[in-house]
Amino acid sequence: MKIIKVKLGERTYEIIIGNRILGGLGKHIQRLKIGDSAYIITNAFLKRKYGKILISALNKNKISYKFRLIPDSERSKSIILASCIIQDLVGFDKNKRVFIIALGGGVVGDLAGFIASIYKRGVPYIQIPTTLLAQVDSSIGGKTAVDTQEAKNIIGAFYQPRLVLSDISLLSSLNLRQLRAGLAEVIKYAAIENRQLFSYLEKNHQKILSKEKKSLEFIVSRCSAIKAKVVEKDEKEKKGLRTILNFGHTLGHAIEAASNYKKYNHGEAITLGMLIAADISIRLKLLKDSRILGRIEKLIFKVGLPIKIKGISLRSIIKSHYHDKKFRGTKNRLVLLKDLGKVKVVTGVPLEIIKEALKKRF
Amino acid sequence: MKIIKVKLGERTYEIIIGNRILGGLGKHIQRLKIGDSAYIITNAFLKRKYGKILISALNKNKISYKFRLIPDSERSKSIILASCIIQDLVGFDKNKRVFIIALGGGVVGDLAGFIASIYKRGVPYIQIPTTLLAQVDSSIGGKTAVDTQEAKNIIGAFYQPRLVLSDISLLSSLNLRQLRAGLAEVIKYAAIENRQLFSYLEKNHQKILSKEKKSLEFIVSRCSAIKAKVVEKDEKEKKGLRTILNFGHTLGHAIEAASNYKKYNHGEAITLGMLIAADISIRLKLLKDSRILGRIEKLIFKVGLPIKIKGISLRSIIKSHYHDKKFRGTKNRLVLLKDLGKVKVVTGVPLEIIKEALKKRF
Repeated sequence: MKIIKVKLGERTYEIIIGNRILGGLGKHIQRLKIGDSAYIITNAFLKRKYGKILISALNKNKISYKFRLIPDSERSKSIILASCIIQDLVGFDKNKRVFIIALGGGVVGDLAGFIASIYKRGVPYIQIPTTLLAQVDSSIGGKTAVDTQEAKNIIGAFYQPRLVLSDISLLSSLNLRQLRAGLAEVIKYAAIENRQLFSYLEKNHQKILSKEKKSLEFIVSRCSAIKAKVVEKDEKEKKGLRTILNFGHTLGHAIEAASNYKKYNHGEAITLGMLIAADISIRLKLLKDSRILGRIEKLIFKVGLPIKIKGISLRSIIKSHYHDKKFRGTKNRLVLLKDLGKVKVVTGVPLEIIKEALKKRF
Repeated sequence: MKIIKVKLGERTYEIIIGNRILGGLGKHIQRLKIGDSAYIITNAFLKRKYGKILISALNKNKISYKFRLIPDSERSKSIILASCIIQDLVGFDKNKRVFIIALGGGVVGDLAGFIASIYKRGVPYIQIPTTLLAQVDSSIGGKTAVDTQEAKNIIGAFYQPRLVLSDISLLSSLNLRQLRAGLAEVIKYAAIENRQLFSYLEKNHQKILSKEKKSLEFIVSRCSAIKAKVVEKDEKEKKGLRTILNFGHTLGHAIEAASNYKKYNHGEAITLGMLIAADISIRLKLLKDSRILGRIEKLIFKVGLPIKIKGISLRSIIKSHYHDKKFRGTKNRLVLLKDLGKVKVVTGVPLEIIKEALKKRF
């Protein structure tokens, strides 16, 4: 078991990482004094799979609970559903000290975190991420969000959880595609911040893909520590430091949007985004050692993530790119590589260069 | 002109109070560097009345703008309308640096502040309060909120504005009932924190009711300073200090709710709530000098605010009281008087005593 602190003054909290630790949840709730009634947001599959362990953990510490099941789809991240859930929550919350538990992946975490941030001007919430992607990334850092029809994650808040409990054993229900999507973010952390982790992945990706517990715990711990450090320095993404976590995301989001969030999942899209960003870095002579692009491409290929774009047009990607909320005024903003483990945020990258790098991926 | 700072670290902002100061808004926006495009939330009446001054102030500093009109009703404070407005805002916000202006009373301020808090995880907003109630109270302190069908203000965030511009000349369009509703909050500030202000009101309430500019500027400045100080000490209402601002509000809210938010407006309801709280304070022997209740009652009567409850039953008030979100667990929590200008927060006040004090108001 490993404990990583996210130090944010009065909003400080722990990420606890370990195998089969869900059963100990009750004592953490008691220690943190966050309430006596848990409103659990999750989906039907996860409730069936882990509901019993969770219930017994809560019962042990006499915490009452209610499950609220949501469809397992990005469409659940709507302000309409958030508002329906809050109406249900008002009914549950009669003279109680309510807190929220997000048991799930990114969709559940983003939605539940958003609800926690706006219900009664903020109630405590706990993240129990059940996907690799959520364990290494989305459950940490307090970014909560819902979508409108026009734009993903356009509504939200910075609102930190009181605890992140990353139980490695919960990853056993992931299929290979979901696992790979998480690995995409792990590769991102390695590329932007930790070349030792990159070498580790080059050597151990097969162990990870076969869900060997030790290697999973290692990468979740390492990535959580990196993310915690970045979030500590720039909690609300105001200083441009947190921006480095968007490596591969600007063009990745454009690819996701251009495919109508169907063909590529988030991990696959940012994989392509990272390759394009690395390519742009070379073209701008920011990344001197061009072999690094080759190493990234090779690792991505071995892991089974895409290195070529299929089924969407270059034009639609460029169009989506210009709608990205990461735009500052009329300028784009990209996280580029200086070296393996070192990045630089660059604004106003010429469109021609972006197009050239994009073309290479077709 | 008077400037009061609300000191909250990186969230520090100014309240600027003066007569005919709206025309100078543009230079403040420029100084604060909060953006180039204003999304103005207001209602049709206020746009007709003050739109021209506002537009010319923005034009002077080349700030583009869009007006979004909302119905002048508590019903506008819904998450559904907030979500519609955000969709419109996404359309307006194409590669701009958008900020929000709330031009209006409590409803506009609460809704616009809430939208600012959740759009893109927070964009800057400016409060331009147009009612006395908003100038002395709701525009300051960053409490934003919308309602659900079940409960008022149950959804919201603590999110501070970047500037509060209280232009006394905007109060000229208020009718007497609206002015009195604001005065109710002024009496509250005097009762909880400033006996000199209370004496001032006893002497000058007629000047205020006839909208004499100097006396209005005086009370807005004085109340803003009190509120700023309380908010500085307890921004997110966690230390029980900000709670003192709820003097009269716990039972006031119950009265509002019991009348279905029809018979009494907020100011009238909290007036009654203050009288009941003062009465409870005497019954609990917290307030030794029982003449103080008499002084408060006399001032309220002279101002033309209600001192008796009509048209709702005692039972319905008690029932609403038990649904208040200020309940901690199963205990009620009341702000009571120790003296004029001094309060104490008391939890678990026996229902019998509340009932006795309530009965006196029928």
